[in-house]
Amino acid sequence: MRMVDVIAKKRDGGTLAIKEIEDFVRAYTADQIPDYQASAFAMAIYFQGMDEQESAALTKAMAASGDQLDLSRIAGTKVDKHSTGGVGDKTTFILSPIVAAAGVPVAKLSGRGLGHTGGTIDKLEAFPGFETELEEDTFIELVNKNKIAIAGQSGNLTPADKKLYALRDVTATVNAMPLIASSIMSKKIAAGSDAIVLDVKVGSGAFMTDLPAAKELARTMVNIGNELDRRTVAVISDMDQPLGRMVGNTLEVKEVIDVLRGNGPEDIYRLSVRLAAHMLVLGGKAKDVETGQTLANKLIQDGSALDIFRKFLESQGADPTLVDHPERLAKANNIITVEASASGYISTIDATKIGQAAGMLGAGRMTKGDIIDHAVGVEVKAKVGDWVEKGDVLVDLHANRDDVSEVVSVVKDSYQISDHAPEERPLIFHEMI
Amino acid sequence: MRMVDVIAKKRDGGTLAIKEIEDFVRAYTADQIPDYQASAFAMAIYFQGMDEQESAALTKAMAASGDQLDLSRIAGTKVDKHSTGGVGDKTTFILSPIVAAAGVPVAKLSGRGLGHTGGTIDKLEAFPGFETELEEDTFIELVNKNKIAIAGQSGNLTPADKKLYALRDVTATVNAMPLIASSIMSKKIAAGSDAIVLDVKVGSGAFMTDLPAAKELARTMVNIGNELDRRTVAVISDMDQPLGRMVGNTLEVKEVIDVLRGNGPEDIYRLSVRLAAHMLVLGGKAKDVETGQTLANKLIQDGSALDIFRKFLESQGADPTLVDHPERLAKANNIITVEASASGYISTIDATKIGQAAGMLGAGRMTKGDIIDHAVGVEVKAKVGDWVEKGDVLVDLHANRDDVSEVVSVVKDSYQISDHAPEERPLIFHEMI
Repeated sequence: MRMVDVIAKKRDGGTLAIKEIEDFVRAYTADQIPDYQASAFAMAIYFQGMDEQESAALTKAMAASGDQLDLSRIAGTKVDKHSTGGVGDKTTFILSPIVAAAGVPVAKLSGRGLGHTGGTIDKLEAFPGFETELEEDTFIELVNKNKIAIAGQSGNLTPADKKLYALRDVTATVNAMPLIASSIMSKKIAAGSDAIVLDVKVGSGAFMTDLPAAKELARTMVNIGNELDRRTVAVISDMDQPLGRMVGNTLEVKEVIDVLRGNGPEDIYRLSVRLAAHMLVLGGKAKDVETGQTLANKLIQDGSALDIFRKFLESQGADPTLVDHPERLAKANNIITVEASASGYISTIDATKIGQAAGMLGAGRMTKGDIIDHAVGVEVKAKVGDWVEKGDVLVDLHANRDDVSEVVSVVKDSYQISDHAPEERPLIFHEMI
Repeated sequence: MRMVDVIAKKRDGGTLAIKEIEDFVRAYTADQIPDYQASAFAMAIYFQGMDEQESAALTKAMAASGDQLDLSRIAGTKVDKHSTGGVGDKTTFILSPIVAAAGVPVAKLSGRGLGHTGGTIDKLEAFPGFETELEEDTFIELVNKNKIAIAGQSGNLTPADKKLYALRDVTATVNAMPLIASSIMSKKIAAGSDAIVLDVKVGSGAFMTDLPAAKELARTMVNIGNELDRRTVAVISDMDQPLGRMVGNTLEVKEVIDVLRGNGPEDIYRLSVRLAAHMLVLGGKAKDVETGQTLANKLIQDGSALDIFRKFLESQGADPTLVDHPERLAKANNIITVEASASGYISTIDATKIGQAAGMLGAGRMTKGDIIDHAVGVEVKAKVGDWVEKGDVLVDLHANRDDVSEVVSVVKDSYQISDHAPEERPLIFHEMI
């Protein structure tokens, strides 16, 4: 294989052979193909796309480029969930204890990553003492015992994807649909689960801002999953405003506890239950999504999900009674209110800007070395469609510093207030089963 | 300027600012932009193209990336000619003495390059003693005295183009029209002439195999030239079979002398005169192409062009009487005939394969270090449209080695013989003035 011929083939709209894709991934990971060929190749894929077989082959090859988790020692159907990311998205912490309570094993490896707020692991560390560095044996034991364990990623998962993603990031080839889809799916495949529920976000706070693009991404990932014998389902959900009311690590964890108690904001409650329902179906614990939803609701209402959550915390070194006394979790020193400058309906809240505000307060990290302040963040008091009077509180900023004037202006920028009630946006736009 | 943003802009079909293009060329030449960004950029240009202003800006910036020739000490309008390349193309050696004889100065810098036969400089070295390494002052003196001098390229001309071309070659981005056009034109601009005649070849032996592509390339280059205040004219001419009958360095030089004596094959004669006519118009020596053609013919027929050629050889160290005794030029040891295997009309001759055959005999170089054998090559005896009987000679191979069986089979492959006379192809398809 001469790489220049493979690039030319894709450039001219040809369909690559599985072997050509495998050879590319293997040679590129081994530094035998230079970045300048890989970037031209990525740009050709941007313009010419890839069909289902090509996308699946790319995904499989990237999954196989490094370590792959073997979860065969865990009994039952392992169902993973992945969100394409959004502001205030804490569904993982809600649906995991729900499905675990139903007997579907949750064996989750997560990262820290960069962003306005922390990743899954960072949020869990809002519970003092929570231990995420688990030996593989301990991890598997815990899942078999409690049906749930969440650990930090160790080992060398999907190095091909890491290398290619870093290159795409600086060559304007991130937004190629088959590359986005195979990047996400290769990590899920390498993580070893049997079935996958994808939460594809759409809106101002999401990677995909419009519905057709979100649908295309969802369809591409579902096809890849099914091609590779992982039953895969996608839910396309709204990310045009923050999900729930809390943005920031400890704040989000508090909201998780609220929801697991049967309270909490309606959107995060409903979406978590819906995603859990799909996982219950894939995990063989419900015959259809409606039944799964009923079961998920029951597992919240009867306290089973919260029980599992307590066990989960305790098993990984945190104090389980924090679930009953969330007021003991870390608090920020100052609460600064941002008020409505006019009366009217909240017509839009730019979710990305709210995320940015939380980041400015210290809730996330921009570079690997940054230290996260778990206690800080944004509490969204007024959401889209709400009527506010001038002077009503839009958000509370939970801050550990004195000068938050810049943050306040970012938050103010994110809100639009109008005379007319906005058209209602669905929480869930579409589902692909 | 962040290069990733410039790539994204082009990827999305945007029009680049002149400054963005200039900054790219400057930074890339200075190794401040990595190859992986330049190759993704080139692929984006492949798909999205460039408009006239962008192409002109790229050309100008690449021309300015290194040394630029100053021909202001040469009196008169300097007119350059460029051919996109073909098999048996020796028009330069014919039209240069013609226009010089009319008083249009020919100040030509040429390269050796890689290919099936040698470059301009290599062909001139078929005349023993011919000196191509000239000091700038000597070069300019000679042009002012004889109206003609041809020297090898020294100095650092268009390093941006050299670097970018080498990258395009291994990233499947050679065939991007604005990049092809700006690569050619940047070298012409840096070479300092006032006006340019382009001979864009089309056919099996050319870079552009079909007429629409050849027209697009011609149009793009003419636009660039005119944008940059160089009057530029393009002739689109046939390269579906070898031009003339001789392919190989000394063989071609002999055909040149034939034509300058008023003989030689009709196609090479006619095309050379036509190109010379355009140069005479641009150089202010003829009011239109028809007049220019009449003048060019006269300068051949009355011996003026040949006189100039003699002076040119003498001034650069070669024996001028070789023009009158071309039989004294180097000869190959063996002449091997390749015969027709059936009777019929010659319907096609694959020009690339004939070039390849010459290359296999040693007429060109594949890598920089290869040594050219000036004496070897292919003499085409039967051309498209000719009727041949079985056993008639198709070509004579002029060889300095014994085993030419592989070369014979390449030549045989290149000929197709049919019952029907082929449709006639024009020699000149189109002219853009």
